[in-house]
Amino acid sequence: MTEPILSHTFPNGLVLVAEPMRSLQSAAFTFLLPTGCAHDPAHRGGLGSFTCEMLLRGAGTRDSRRLVLDLDKLGVERSESVNHIHTGFSGATLAANLGEALAIYGDILRRPHLPEEQFEAARQVMLQELQAIEDEPAQKMMVALRLRHYPEPWGRPSQGEREAILATTIEEVRDHFARHYHAQDAILGVAGRFDWELLQDTVGELFGDWSPRKPPEVAEGPSGPRYVHLPYASNQTHIGIAYPSVPYRDDDYFQAWGAVGVLSGGMSSRLFTEVRERRGLCYTVHAMPHTLRDRGGVFCYAGTTADRAQETLEVTLGELCRLAEGVEAHELDRLKARIKSSLIMQQESSSARSAAVARDWYHLGRARTLEELGQLVDGLTCRSINAYLAEHPPRDFTFATLGPEELEVPDGVS
Amino acid sequence: MTEPILSHTFPNGLVLVAEPMRSLQSAAFTFLLPTGCAHDPAHRGGLGSFTCEMLLRGAGTRDSRRLVLDLDKLGVERSESVNHIHTGFSGATLAANLGEALAIYGDILRRPHLPEEQFEAARQVMLQELQAIEDEPAQKMMVALRLRHYPEPWGRPSQGEREAILATTIEEVRDHFARHYHAQDAILGVAGRFDWELLQDTVGELFGDWSPRKPPEVAEGPSGPRYVHLPYASNQTHIGIAYPSVPYRDDDYFQAWGAVGVLSGGMSSRLFTEVRERRGLCYTVHAMPHTLRDRGGVFCYAGTTADRAQETLEVTLGELCRLAEGVEAHELDRLKARIKSSLIMQQESSSARSAAVARDWYHLGRARTLEELGQLVDGLTCRSINAYLAEHPPRDFTFATLGPEELEVPDGVS
Repeated sequence: MTEPILSHTFPNGLVLVAEPMRSLQSAAFTFLLPTGCAHDPAHRGGLGSFTCEMLLRGAGTRDSRRLVLDLDKLGVERSESVNHIHTGFSGATLAANLGEALAIYGDILRRPHLPEEQFEAARQVMLQELQAIEDEPAQKMMVALRLRHYPEPWGRPSQGEREAILATTIEEVRDHFARHYHAQDAILGVAGRFDWELLQDTVGELFGDWSPRKPPEVAEGPSGPRYVHLPYASNQTHIGIAYPSVPYRDDDYFQAWGAVGVLSGGMSSRLFTEVRERRGLCYTVHAMPHTLRDRGGVFCYAGTTADRAQETLEVTLGELCRLAEGVEAHELDRLKARIKSSLIMQQESSSARSAAVARDWYHLGRARTLEELGQLVDGLTCRSINAYLAEHPPRDFTFATLGPEELEVPDGVS
Repeated sequence: MTEPILSHTFPNGLVLVAEPMRSLQSAAFTFLLPTGCAHDPAHRGGLGSFTCEMLLRGAGTRDSRRLVLDLDKLGVERSESVNHIHTGFSGATLAANLGEALAIYGDILRRPHLPEEQFEAARQVMLQELQAIEDEPAQKMMVALRLRHYPEPWGRPSQGEREAILATTIEEVRDHFARHYHAQDAILGVAGRFDWELLQDTVGELFGDWSPRKPPEVAEGPSGPRYVHLPYASNQTHIGIAYPSVPYRDDDYFQAWGAVGVLSGGMSSRLFTEVRERRGLCYTVHAMPHTLRDRGGVFCYAGTTADRAQETLEVTLGELCRLAEGVEAHELDRLKARIKSSLIMQQESSSARSAAVARDWYHLGRARTLEELGQLVDGLTCRSINAYLAEHPPRDFTFATLGPEELEVPDGVS
């Protein structure tokens, strides 16, 4: 049903991985650069995001204004993101504009101006973003949860800290760019309508002579305490619970993923049913798997009123622990039906696929087609999932809460 | 390029409007029921949302549990929403499952159980949602802005008020359902892969004998004062500015829409450039047109730190007023390129199209193809937009702010 995924590794280490989607008229691309907030220096949290904010302010022969004018003229719907392991640059446009759009990104990623006269405006934008998170309590809580779940530096917030942003200099940004923006381990995912020969030539011309310098290694530190409470004047309490899980590259990943799907996915999932529909404890409750290269976690969120927070924590945690008893055939059947439908719908989005093939390459060194994903999901059985759960029951929980009062975190469960 | 849009009006007033998208394997549907929060009784704000929350808790031969199990089994990605004029029920699934999914919605919209034993859990969910908005200051400010911009009841928040939700009885929900869920003025939009003959037959069987009762009229009241400040303990200030504009059905709508596109759309837009890139005042700033049937507005948002709030308000407002001087050819060219690209990308999403054709029908009594939209955008000229702006300069502004301190709203501009 889906076409084979194509890939080419250039001598300098850059990987081009591409999925043809011939029914579309668009093409989308995702660059993953091997520099995430885990690569920020310890005293300069946010330096990678700051660098990313500066990169679009002029590159190659275009000044800042011309660059954004030309991207808009090509109709590129773009976005940038910094996570723990990568800085990502994505865009989607008409198939005919793909080459021109990639050429502009060639300048952005290799020849940015990083202009001093725009540095203070960029710093203000960084500070504004940090401040905006103060008004997003759910996000603030999840940042705290991640910091405790993962060992340093894997749980860090990409937006950094105020003091670091205030202290950052233009030289530090330029130095960060020079260290981290190289071809080795960089991945370019493309999906949609394109000509494979032409695409390889274009990417070769634009990036073939990019220097291959190897990205620096990251040293791991300890993780945080198992419970943190952030006092916040509100009637609302935001509850986060995390527990360790296997990463995407692990053979058992889909067993873990299936178990989380039964817990939280669709209206008939356990969390939605028990916490929201039956007890009306929350408006929103969900659990999601998250993966780094060598470790993973399941992150669960519930937002509720302060007076129902303790009950919500207990009911949610009860459902997490009950998962160890296994899943049932009818739950797995529904999960498979849902996923089958959603895989086919993904097949209609070039943006989603360009990001997916690039991520796959990072984790696996190859990309899975939607068909292969479908087969992996089809191959799940209650027996296989329950065997996984028996060996890896949800435990060693980390908790974060944000609200007017600290909650009681049960002792026996972590 | 795009295929003609098909439509059929059933004798009871229900309209089926459908766009074939033969390259897809999915099909999506959007029901628009002519009951929005403007139809909530004055003392029962949120009754429509409460009714919507109860509707999926069992219908036809399925109890609450069976209903969600079966929707999940069909792989339906569903959502519900209540705005001022409509309650919407949307779903996307594999083309082969469309008929079965519509049959379940036939039960939901015509034969819901509205079970008493789930009423308190539903009330709790409604209260939790209201409470969650307290922790979303940007959304809270926009609710206040809308309340002041539009005359009553068009600016009301769909989620209602706490006292009303606490006082609502199951009889009121059942009565609201009985009054408002009828075929007259109901619209079913479908997009994706389907057989038109079969779809008409299916919809006819499921909804052909639905009672045609006419929806009740809505009486208009006055609008609110022109500036409201909501005190909020934070270092952040959320600023909203609205001004009147023409509704979607107006011949000049696309002129107004083009002007807002120059103001706020893409990285090279005026607001993004002046407020974010050059001055670093905000992380987020945007303006968006909003339309009811007979009136519209442009709603502008900027979030910033308290110490830069007054400057942000003034710079943003300055850009709104400067729009009256007209737009330039290069701005319009970029807008056209962006839109061309985004129209083609929309063409790849059955969900977006099913909602668009249904909304079009409400506003125009027919649906526009993406090709027709493309021609309308192509037909825009600086001359036509500037003539519109000369006649309708942004003015009569309404303001809402949320943050630690009230701002000074210039006198001369409204």
